[in-house]
Parts: sequence; C-alpha cells; structure tokens
Amino acid sequence: MSLPLINPRELAFQLYELLPTAELSRRERFADHSRDTFDAAIDTARRVAEDYFAPHHREVDEHEPVFEDGVVTMLPQVKVALDAYAEAGFLAAHHDYELGGMQLPQVVTQAIQGIFQVANIATQSYALLTVAAANVIHHFGSAQQKQRFLPAMLDGRFTGTMCLTEPHAGSSLGDLRTSAELQTDGTYAISGNKIFISGGDHELSQNIVHLVLARIKGAPSGTRGISLFIVPKFLVDDSGTIGERNDVALAGLLHKMGWRGTTSTMLNFGEKRGATGYLIGEPNQGLRYMFHMMNEARIGVGMGATMLGYAGYQHSLDYARNRPQGRPPQAKDFDTPQRPIIEHADVRAMLLKQKAYVEGALALELYCGALVDDIATGDDQQRDAASLLLDLLTPLAKSWPSQYCLKANELAIQILGGYGYTRDYPVEQYYRDNRLNPIHEGTNGIQAIDLLGRKVTQHKGAALALLQSKIGETVSAADGLSICAPLANSVGDSVALLNELTAHLLRSFATAGGEAVLANASVYLDLCGRILISWMWLRQAIVAERALDSATADDSDFYRGKLQAARYYITWELPEIYPQAEILRRIDPTCFEMQDGWF
Amino acid sequence: MSLPLINPRELAFQLYELLPTAELSRRERFADHSRDTFDAAIDTARRVAEDYFAPHHREVDEHEPVFEDGVVTMLPQVKVALDAYAEAGFLAAHHDYELGGMQLPQVVTQAIQGIFQVANIATQSYALLTVAAANVIHHFGSAQQKQRFLPAMLDGRFTGTMCLTEPHAGSSLGDLRTSAELQTDGTYAISGNKIFISGGDHELSQNIVHLVLARIKGAPSGTRGISLFIVPKFLVDDSGTIGERNDVALAGLLHKMGWRGTTSTMLNFGEKRGATGYLIGEPNQGLRYMFHMMNEARIGVGMGATMLGYAGYQHSLDYARNRPQGRPPQAKDFDTPQRPIIEHADVRAMLLKQKAYVEGALALELYCGALVDDIATGDDQQRDAASLLLDLLTPLAKSWPSQYCLKANELAIQILGGYGYTRDYPVEQYYRDNRLNPIHEGTNGIQAIDLLGRKVTQHKGAALALLQSKIGETVSAADGLSICAPLANSVGDSVALLNELTAHLLRSFATAGGEAVLANASVYLDLCGRILISWMWLRQAIVAERALDSATADDSDFYRGKLQAARYYITWELPEIYPQAEILRRIDPTCFEMQDGWF
Repeated sequence: MSLPLINPRELAFQLYELLPTAELSRRERFADHSRDTFDAAIDTARRVAEDYFAPHHREVDEHEPVFEDGVVTMLPQVKVALDAYAEAGFLAAHHDYELGGMQLPQVVTQAIQGIFQVANIATQSYALLTVAAANVIHHFGSAQQKQRFLPAMLDGRFTGTMCLTEPHAGSSLGDLRTSAELQTDGTYAISGNKIFISGGDHELSQNIVHLVLARIKGAPSGTRGISLFIVPKFLVDDSGTIGERNDVALAGLLHKMGWRGTTSTMLNFGEKRGATGYLIGEPNQGLRYMFHMMNEARIGVGMGATMLGYAGYQHSLDYARNRPQGRPPQAKDFDTPQRPIIEHADVRAMLLKQKAYVEGALALELYCGALVDDIATGDDQQRDAASLLLDLLTPLAKSWPSQYCLKANELAIQILGGYGYTRDYPVEQYYRDNRLNPIHEGTNGIQAIDLLGRKVTQHKGAALALLQSKIGETVSAADGLSICAPLANSVGDSVALLNELTAHLLRSFATAGGEAVLANASVYLDLCGRILISWMWLRQAIVAERALDSATADDSDFYRGKLQAARYYITWELPEIYPQAEILRRIDPTCFEMQDGWF
Repeated sequence: MSLPLINPRELAFQLYELLPTAELSRRERFADHSRDTFDAAIDTARRVAEDYFAPHHREVDEHEPVFEDGVVTMLPQVKVALDAYAEAGFLAAHHDYELGGMQLPQVVTQAIQGIFQVANIATQSYALLTVAAANVIHHFGSAQQKQRFLPAMLDGRFTGTMCLTEPHAGSSLGDLRTSAELQTDGTYAISGNKIFISGGDHELSQNIVHLVLARIKGAPSGTRGISLFIVPKFLVDDSGTIGERNDVALAGLLHKMGWRGTTSTMLNFGEKRGATGYLIGEPNQGLRYMFHMMNEARIGVGMGATMLGYAGYQHSLDYARNRPQGRPPQAKDFDTPQRPIIEHADVRAMLLKQKAYVEGALALELYCGALVDDIATGDDQQRDAASLLLDLLTPLAKSWPSQYCLKANELAIQILGGYGYTRDYPVEQYYRDNRLNPIHEGTNGIQAIDLLGRKVTQHKGAALALLQSKIGETVSAADGLSICAPLANSVGDSVALLNELTAHLLRSFATAGGEAVLANASVYLDLCGRILISWMWLRQAIVAERALDSATADDSDFYRGKLQAARYYITWELPEIYPQAEILRRIDPTCFEMQDGWF
C-alpha cells in the first residue's frame, strides 16, 4: 500500500511537541544527537521496514513456519528482512558506541520499533526478543558471558529467547519444574520442558541464546528458588566460535490464531544428558533479572498492541475515504453518485474512537519510553521520579493498549464490512495478531493484580501520589484554554475520585479481606486506564490548542483532530469510571461470591 | 468433547420455565404436540448434531472449500451431515404436515437450530439458508413456483441462497444494478454481479435456488424499483425435473477470517445470454419480500452469535474447572498442589460475564421465536402485540448478541490463556466465526439507524410503549421477592430513563436535525440493549427465586447461578446506561462534527 507506516506528522507531534525528545541531546550520553540524527534513524527504519518487512506481512501469515526433518523452515524473506535490520544497526541502536551501538534514547528506539511493528510484527519479533535477551546479559551477565554472547547478538548472528512458561506453569511461575544441577566445570545441567517459547527454533541465525528460568537442585520452592541461565542452542567458546549442539530439542511448533510468522515452540531441555547452562548473576535471583527484561517486554507488548491498532486505523481511514456507499440521510437521492462512507456519522464515530485509542496509547507508550530514558540518563530527581512512575504505569502500559487497540482492530474490520472479514484486506490479520497481546507477558488479569495488589501500595503509595501530582500539573496548565479547560475539569474530577477510591480500597484490604478487594482488580485497572489515557489526551489537547493560532492550514486540521479526539475520549469514555467507581466503592462481591457449582 | 452441546437443564429452563412453550400445544396447529414431542425433536437434533456436525467442526475450518476446474469441492463430511439433517426432517420442521413438515413451533425449531449452531455453524448454514429461501417461496411464490421448488428444498435435494449484495452496493441496497428484462415467455433475463453470497456454489445438492434482487428495466431508481426473482442454478420443469444449466457462473470464492466452511461466493448472472429468472409476487416489491426473510435471518444471526458465544462459554468453563494453575491469594504455599483456575476470582468474573451475555442473549432470541409463533398462531391480540414487539426487537436481537457474545468469545480465549490462542483448542475458532455476525444481514450501524430512525417512531411509538409496559409487568412481578425486588427497581428506573430519552431524541429530530440525532444511534442501540437484556435477566431471576424454595440441590445450584448472573448484569452492566444517557441527552455532536481532514 502507499500509506506511510506511521503518519510522519503524528510521530513528529508525539516525539517533539508532546515530549521533549529534542532536548535529550543536552544529556551527555546523547551529546552527538539532535532532532536531525533522531529523524535520520527513523527515516532509515521507515525505509528498511517498507522495503523488507511490509512486503511479506501477509505471506508470513499464510505460510507458517514448518517443522520437518528436524528443521524449522519459513519464508526466506524473514531472514532477508532481519539481516537488513541488523545491517542497519537497529539491534544495537540504544547501546554504547563501543558495543557498535548508536546511543539512541529509548523513546526514539521505541518509535523505530513501532514502525517495524506496523510493517510486520511477526518478523520484527525475532529482533525484539534478541534485543531484550541481550539487555539481560548486558545488565546482569558476567564479563565472560558478555564477551561470548553479546557481540553476536548485537550484530544479528545470534538471536535470543525468553524461556519462562512450562506446560503446567504459565501465570504461576513459582511452580516451574525445570531443574539445574551444578557440574564440576561450574556449568549447570538443565532439564525440563518449556512451552510458548517465541523464536525458540529456526534457521534465521547461527545460534539461539535461550534465557531459561530453572530451579537449582535443593533451592527453595516457589518464586524464591528460581535462577536464570543462558542455554545456547550451540555451545560457544570464549572466542565466540560455535561448537557442538547443546541438548536443547524442539518438541514441536504451536499453531496460533494469529502472529503466525513468529514460531511458537515447545522445547525440551536435557532429554539426553542435560543441557549446558550458564548461571546469570546469583542463584535464586532469576526472577528479579527476568523481571527487568519482563518490564521492558511489557512495554514492548503495549507498543506492539498500539501499532497493530494504528495499522488498522490507517487502513480503515483510507478505506472510508475511498469507498463510496450510500448517502448521508439528508441527501437520499439514488440518482446521485454514492458518497464515501466517511460521510456517514457512524463511520466517523468508529474512526474517531480508533484514533482516540491508538494515538492515546501511542502517547502512553512513548511517555514510558521517555521515563526509561530518565531512569538511565536523567538527574537524580528525574531518575527517582521516573522509576516510581514507570513501575506504576507498566501494568497499564501493557494491558490498556492490548485491550483497546484490539477493540480498534474490531472497529477497523467493521468499517470495511464484508471486505474487512476477508483475507484480501489486512485488517482481519491485525485483529488476529493483536488478540495475543492481552495474554502474553502476564495476562491482563495478572496486570490488574500487579497494579492494585502491589504497585499502588509499595513505597507507601508514593507512585500514585506522584502520578496524581503530574496529572494535576497538566490540569492546571489548561487554565485559560477555552477548549481544554472544561476537559481538564473532568480529568481533575477523575483524579480526585481515583484518590478517594484507592484509599477506600486499601483500607478495605483489612476490613473486607485482600481476596475480596482484589477480586475486582480488573475494574480498578480499567478505571485507572481511562484516567491515564484521558491525561494523555489532555496533554495532547493542550499542545494542540496552544499551537492552533499560529498553525498552517494543514497543521490546523491536524490540531483540530487532536482536540476532537481528546474531547471524544474525555467526554465519552472517561465517564464510564463513575459506574465502575460504584462497584469498587461497595467492594462488590458478585463475582467473588459466584460458586463453581452455580455455573 | 464430552460436553453436551447445550446444557439440557438450561434449555429446559428457557423453553418451559421462562417461556410457556408447553402451552403451545393448546393451539390448533400444535394440537398433536406436547413437551414430550418437542423434547423428542430436540433429542434427535442433539444426536444428529453430535454424530454428524460436531466431529468435523475444526476440519471444516482447516480445509476451506476450493474452486478448481469449475467445481467447488469441500470436505465430504459436510454433505453427509446435511443429508442427515434433511433425513431427520429438520428442513421442513416448522412446515405443515402436508408439506412433509412436523408443524413444530418456531421457538422449538430455533432451539434445534441453536444446537446445530453450537456443533458446527458453517455446515449448518447451508441448511439455514435453504430454510429461509424456502420460506420466501412458501410465503410469496406462485403456486407453480412452490410446486417446482419447494418439495426439493424441503427434502434437501435443492439448497437456497439470498443474493442481495453487489460489489459496489452492500449497505446501500437501493444502488444495486443487477437488471431483469422481461422475455416473451414471461420469464426474465437476469444480468449482474453479486458478492458475499453464502452457499452460492457447491456440489452439496442437485440444484441451488438463488433468490436474487434485481431491477426490472425501466423500474424506478433506488429501493422502490427492486424486484425479487428465483434464479436456479439448473432450470427445472414443472415436474421438478432438472434441465439445462442456467446462466449463473461462479466468479470466485472469498476467503474469510472465520466461518470458513461456508462458501462465500462472487456470482455472475447472465454473462452469456441472461440468466433465466422467475419473478416472485409483484414487480418492485422485492425488498418487502426479502425483508420478510431478512427479519428471520436477523434473528438467525443473533441466534448464531449467541450459540457461538455459548460454545465458548461451555469450553472455557470446562477448562477453568480442570486446569490447575496457581492458588488463591490467601493460600500461596508452593508446596501444595496448584488449584483449578476457577478458584481465581478474576476467572470466575470472566465466566460470569460470559454467562450473563450468552444466557441473556439466548433468552432474547427464544423470546423472539415465541413472538414469531404468536404472530403465526396466536389470537388477534397476541398477534398484533407480537408483531409490534418483534419489529422493534429485531435490530436488537441481531446486534446485541453479535457484539456481546463476540466479547464472550474474547473472554473464553482469555481464560484458556496461551492455549486459547492456539488452534489446538476451539475457542479461537468461535471468536473468528463470530466476528462475522456484526457485519452480515445489515451491519450493527444499520441496525442502530433502523431502531432509532424507524422502529421506535413508527405506529406512533406504540411498539416502544408496549415494550415498556411488558417490562413494567415484570418489574411488578418482582414485588416481595427479596433478591429480585432491588434488581427490579434498577430495571424500572432504566425504563423510565428510556422513556424520557426517547421522547427527547424524537423531539430533537425537529430541533437538532435528524442527521445529528442519528449520529449517536449506536449509543441508543447499546443503551436499549442493556435495558432489554436486564429485562431478560430479571425474568429469569424471578422464575429462579420463586423456584428456589422447593428445588432439589442440583436445581438450587442452577437457580442460584441464574440469580447471580442477573445480579451481575443488572448491577454491573446496566448502570453504563447513565453515562450513555448524558451523551444522548445533549445530542452530543463530537463524532458528528468530526471532519475528514482532521483525521
């Protein structure tokens, strides 16, 4: 298609008008950078994505990887695309120059990642998993482990995976059974079965570096006894030379509803003699290391969900502008030509809803990216604040887009009607692909418990207090803006409600019991999400209203759209928090009290 | 699987406790019937569905029909199943004895249809389309047309289709271009292209009877000039003997996201010499005839959406009872075995939500079935009331389940987690299949305009007044019931709100303009749906609470479940009408005023 993967005006707005991305060049790490170098990297990404990723988006869905004669085969375009990605340096984009990196800030690499996710999320996943695994080794690996594995992971010779889930233990990681036994040479013999391992086997790279959670013999049960190991598909010596095959076997591929281009595998470790594994960091600290990666991965899931939603929005917008069908109600003359369906109010409503979801989500994900930068390169105050906020926002950044940008994809299909339901148009694939996102990297139910059961309580509620004060600043900033001020009032009211409700819920842990309170954690998650996205829209609206006076005609249209989407979200979607608040206020026991035998 | 297609206790409750189905035997047409004969027919359906439909449910998705060398081939099991369906007499189940029928009431045949929809909706569609087409010929066809086509359609030798949509005209039927030219022998030569014609070509039957909307040369433009024709694939003489091939050609198959077992076709009529067509009834009345069938079809869509939702609910319930994972929050001891996930409150919440959606929808669809019976066999008062109500409820009966039972399928996947996303479990297929339902037989946007723009205004608002009085009766019936009375209060309040809002909206047609009011018709549709389903749940809850005292232990559990689901729906989902009401009250212009250039 001739549509740009992301509207460049939108990306420029998000990065440079809404976020102070250009100012990052004042920080030492980014001293060589400027908006020009960021944009150059983004342009390169766009070109690589358009040339190598987008063209096989549909084919990779139609031709799933196949496991035959011990080898996984897939479309050759996947390897060509990943090689181009590595060649352009994106695997190491955020790393130090000395590692061959570009020292780009996270907010920029995340935008780049988003461009590839729009183009072809399945092919891009192999790269994203490799980047995440390399980050863990970079942060927590020994000097020797870094030397052995990092260079090859950063230039694309090796790929990476995360091996957490086992057939009987997904959400309950503490029940995992994969075992590790110390060998005389200091390595560990790893044995166990893993499932749903994305990128777990293929011929895309010379080697696959599995990061495996396992329990060292004799370690405590539950989450406290889990360690993290590097288990490569092929053993590697200190010079990085590939040796013999490790005892890791592909037991089979899983066949999914969507996201079909990314192999999802069942792996058997140690069927023969035990797979050789290298302990990362300290024993029994594996979950902590993995969660460092997992938090990145959760924002990555949110970003992916956002971009799949964005892709559907762009397609359905283009379709609505070009598909003639019927006429507006006041012009029902069948002798006149049919009008583009965007002239039907209900179609505009479905487009505006999509816009509100996907651009609201994009603002949230890039905001999280900017927080990652503050943690890494901000001053002490920025670092502490960003760390608090990001911890709080992560469950929302993962779950909100994975729910509402899936909804956006549902609406995109609806706009295309019968055509949208066929595989001749891409919107049904976005919908199928996006359905994974509420599930992996912690289901949305897990995110809800993480938010209410942990994130809002830890640090004596400091994170939520900080969020409220940040939102309060935005609300104040709307003073005197005629379009934004009433919207800001609504957002301000919602924050007051959030404050009251949260205090009530936390008190109720003692009175009603934690299980009864957490039973409605998903309602709380959705309520927080609505307030958060309203904030993201208010931030965008304030920038837009301020810029409106001196804007060009094109820019004026762009800003009007931002203001209308903000108005839509805050006046249509935010008020649903009020019935939700009633449920939370009464610690409603309806679902909690439902009994198995009553179904 | 060993699960029953529909829980027999549920079906008995719906048919005999909630609806007075057994009492239909007092009517002359059903004098030979009783609950026993109804149940016998249902048991037969269950057996045929289990033996012939359910076993190839997955295969029919994996092996789509293929068009090669001019012939559509598909799994042989499809024909075997349809032959068994015909053999059991279900194609003629509601017809007169003299036509070979069983004279079953609609409410029973619809339940039977539901059993087949759970088992395998794609294979069942061929039968359903045939029944619907036969109904049109039965109602509006000439004696000769009936003689030629009906016997073979009722015993399964011929199948049927509805040919409405054209590549450039879906929702805007008035723009269709297929033409009909009167021939000297009184037949018409039909020329044009149709698309999305389900069952449009295959080798399942000796002949395919297409019902085709076309415009007779010289007829008025728009909807007023559309006529309906019988266009068989093979010509048939008066004795029913099949003759030469008609000029109807398969131009290609469409490849869909789901519902893959049902061929969706592009058909070319009259490429060579004009296809021979037989006018049904009067010229230019085609849309009226088709809408008779369309209303049936819309309830059929609602029923199908409901049963796909029901299938997912049953599977995810079974999974939740049998899949161990984690432990409740108060019992986090990793040395104890993991517990079935139904013990997690969030999983129970997702199950209860599904139950509320699918059993609420089932009550609505069977209620509509009972209205069809009242129209056909009730006394004058019953007939008039049922006719008013059914007209009003049809857009809701089509759209509500197609939105919320799709949501139920989304939740079913979520309960199965990663497994639910694989094609090894059936829930992802239900989700893909169900995504069609908000689109076909009039998109949900069309249903919204039909409801607010037509159904609530016609007959001076008599239909809505009747619905309100019916709901009022149910509200009164809850007096003195301790569980139901507070729920009834909420439902009563919602009806008062509906009354006020509707009056306001209808007044606003004059002040704000029809287009501005109809711009939010989808909000009104959803608000009405919530009230309607709350009524359906209140009706169920009253039956349950009354029966509770004298119930057996198993029945007591069943009724408790009904009460809890009613409580869930009315206290969690109904209150969302209040923010919706605010949008409607202010004739909110946000979506209406959004401009193309602002996106």
